[in-house]
Amino acid sequence: MATTPTFQDIVAAKHRIAGGIDHTPCDDSPLLSDLCGCRIFTKLEYLQRTGSFKERGARNALLLLDEEQKRNGVVAASAGNHALALAYHGRDLGIPVTVVMPTVAPLVKQERCKQFGAKVVLSGRNIAEAKEEADRFVETEGLAYIHGFDGKDVIAGAGTVGLEILDQVPTVDAIVVPIGGAGLIAGLGLAVKTMRPSTRIIGVEPEHAASYKAALEAGEAVKISMEPTLGDGLAVPMVGPNAFALAKDVVDETVEVSERSLALAILRLLELEKGVVEGAGAAPLAAFLENKLHGLEGKNVVLVLCGGNIDPAVLGRVIDNGLVADGRLVQFRAIISDRPGGLAKLASAIAEAGASVKQITHERAFSHANFSNVEVFCTVETRGHEHAVELLDRLCKLGMPCNRVDF
Amino acid sequence: MATTPTFQDIVAAKHRIAGGIDHTPCDDSPLLSDLCGCRIFTKLEYLQRTGSFKERGARNALLLLDEEQKRNGVVAASAGNHALALAYHGRDLGIPVTVVMPTVAPLVKQERCKQFGAKVVLSGRNIAEAKEEADRFVETEGLAYIHGFDGKDVIAGAGTVGLEILDQVPTVDAIVVPIGGAGLIAGLGLAVKTMRPSTRIIGVEPEHAASYKAALEAGEAVKISMEPTLGDGLAVPMVGPNAFALAKDVVDETVEVSERSLALAILRLLELEKGVVEGAGAAPLAAFLENKLHGLEGKNVVLVLCGGNIDPAVLGRVIDNGLVADGRLVQFRAIISDRPGGLAKLASAIAEAGASVKQITHERAFSHANFSNVEVFCTVETRGHEHAVELLDRLCKLGMPCNRVDF
Repeated sequence: MATTPTFQDIVAAKHRIAGGIDHTPCDDSPLLSDLCGCRIFTKLEYLQRTGSFKERGARNALLLLDEEQKRNGVVAASAGNHALALAYHGRDLGIPVTVVMPTVAPLVKQERCKQFGAKVVLSGRNIAEAKEEADRFVETEGLAYIHGFDGKDVIAGAGTVGLEILDQVPTVDAIVVPIGGAGLIAGLGLAVKTMRPSTRIIGVEPEHAASYKAALEAGEAVKISMEPTLGDGLAVPMVGPNAFALAKDVVDETVEVSERSLALAILRLLELEKGVVEGAGAAPLAAFLENKLHGLEGKNVVLVLCGGNIDPAVLGRVIDNGLVADGRLVQFRAIISDRPGGLAKLASAIAEAGASVKQITHERAFSHANFSNVEVFCTVETRGHEHAVELLDRLCKLGMPCNRVDF
Repeated sequence: MATTPTFQDIVAAKHRIAGGIDHTPCDDSPLLSDLCGCRIFTKLEYLQRTGSFKERGARNALLLLDEEQKRNGVVAASAGNHALALAYHGRDLGIPVTVVMPTVAPLVKQERCKQFGAKVVLSGRNIAEAKEEADRFVETEGLAYIHGFDGKDVIAGAGTVGLEILDQVPTVDAIVVPIGGAGLIAGLGLAVKTMRPSTRIIGVEPEHAASYKAALEAGEAVKISMEPTLGDGLAVPMVGPNAFALAKDVVDETVEVSERSLALAILRLLELEKGVVEGAGAAPLAAFLENKLHGLEGKNVVLVLCGGNIDPAVLGRVIDNGLVADGRLVQFRAIISDRPGGLAKLASAIAEAGASVKQITHERAFSHANFSNVEVFCTVETRGHEHAVELLDRLCKLGMPCNRVDF
């Protein structure tokens, strides 16, 4: 029998966590609206103090503990946003927090949990193994286990995002929500469907971790095998049974998105919204970029940008890939003269075209050109596809035939 | 005689622009507070619809035009944020906008101004030359010129940031503000010093474009020669004479920051605040990272993050440089066996150390090793300086001597 919150639990959570949780903005975005063909509002949950909406559920659950439990403390297995949220609010409320992370957890998240005063235990190769260790803390030390997405109080906390959206965009027609364990969409969906049943609730999950789709097909939460995804915050092999029991009645439809569109959505949010959003948080925009959402033309649509904890090295790669997709970073082979001055002529021609060289390599042995010419491999920054085509035309006309290789 | 706004002009501007300008958040940041040793609040002006605080002055100035001028329209020379702000609010208010941009203006900003309905004219190699063309539009077409930082109405609009900060952080002890043309710090400073004179107003400008420092030394706005800076929004060769006349009485101190600390500040804001901030907007944090600010321990300090329009390609480079500074991206030469399996041994050792190879190049001809060995050049992602040292020690112990080259 599923243990799910009621609408009243969500309203109570809203009052309970007020003051400890930021009211994040939910303004309209003219640039995203142009891109998507409807009026887009973005709910900036990645601006919460630890970078995700998870704080709402964590704080609500912590505040609902009885006094003895507050003294004993809590434990959770998490490699990410839930761990950060518990650590921060545990410190704020004076409740001891232990987080069990798999040994592969990013160092920066381990350090940050410690910085927030949590006890960090490394155990197991994945979350399932870390959970076993966390269960031992429950048995031996009497800690309360706080689940990251499937507890009644955590789902109620997540639901407060829905109440805020209704305050901020009273005429909202649709809300697009990432799905990992399904706690967020369950709580948010219950809040919104209760107050404004005409609002469509649309869930998005990565193709590589489509555990909600599997649950829908099976009629219950089932374990799936996953592939690695940029939306690592959504990589949950089985949706929460409680969350699913609630979500299936309040979610209108769900779609799956590719890794490519997750990457492009991260770049677009960076450029157009000035937001650092992790793959999970970019999933709603990815669904638009992939043309997976229909019937929303001209409507008021809220995208829930649920988290921003992305590794800067990953972000750097996403930017580079996005620039290639936009034709703003191009790679080509060019045949130039092997005599002195051959490379200078190429470099000057690129500069005169207003493009900027990132790298040129010169590979004599592998060159297919004849012996008075040499083939070089160039990576160049351009202003877009049109500019890239212009550049290559210009080089050809100057006697340096080119062959683009970044497609 | 300088034409400067009064406190009353700023209050009037606040009411005039209300509804058309976002109230941006100004919450405390636990992570930046730990980093800076005081209680840091961040004023997120980069979240304005076109990515900067410039909208405040632009909208105020547009609304103060007389009816005939509103029909005729306005013109400005700008390659950046002021152009975007005018274009957007001109469209919103039905006032025709012409922006003259130097021919080198980034294509994306040209396109975005057009997207907002402005007429974009490309003219001149720099802003001074573009300004000459803009002046011709004033003479021949009767357009009103709206200066980006030195008009009374634009300064009054910028001052509304100060009023908002006082509402949001009533106990603010200091506000750290970027200085380009000095319009923002002049208006903000007047607003804050009028209401709460004990608040310190601290200005920050790039070493490469220290036109405010030069003005202070000369006692008036003077033209300086500049070097290119990451804080391109602050690269103004002469502060505004009106802005300076006001600022010199309300600014307590100013400091200059290096390019290196601007880059690191952009990365820290990306990681800790989930914000995409351009070099100009990162200047206040750069001043902390460079230890230029004193006497602020434990105080309530607001950083004004004034803009977020940074080119993604530049952001990518900033991330890479920052990762190198943090020891999270390292380069080293290693000597390995030239026999089959030599490279496999190296790659396995790096993987076992938990590091990740980005690139390995193998240069036989330039190798200084003897003929049974070969030198390879490696770029590797690590978790930080300590991990990098561990990795190189491990490789040495396995008979592959290394020499780090990224310092």
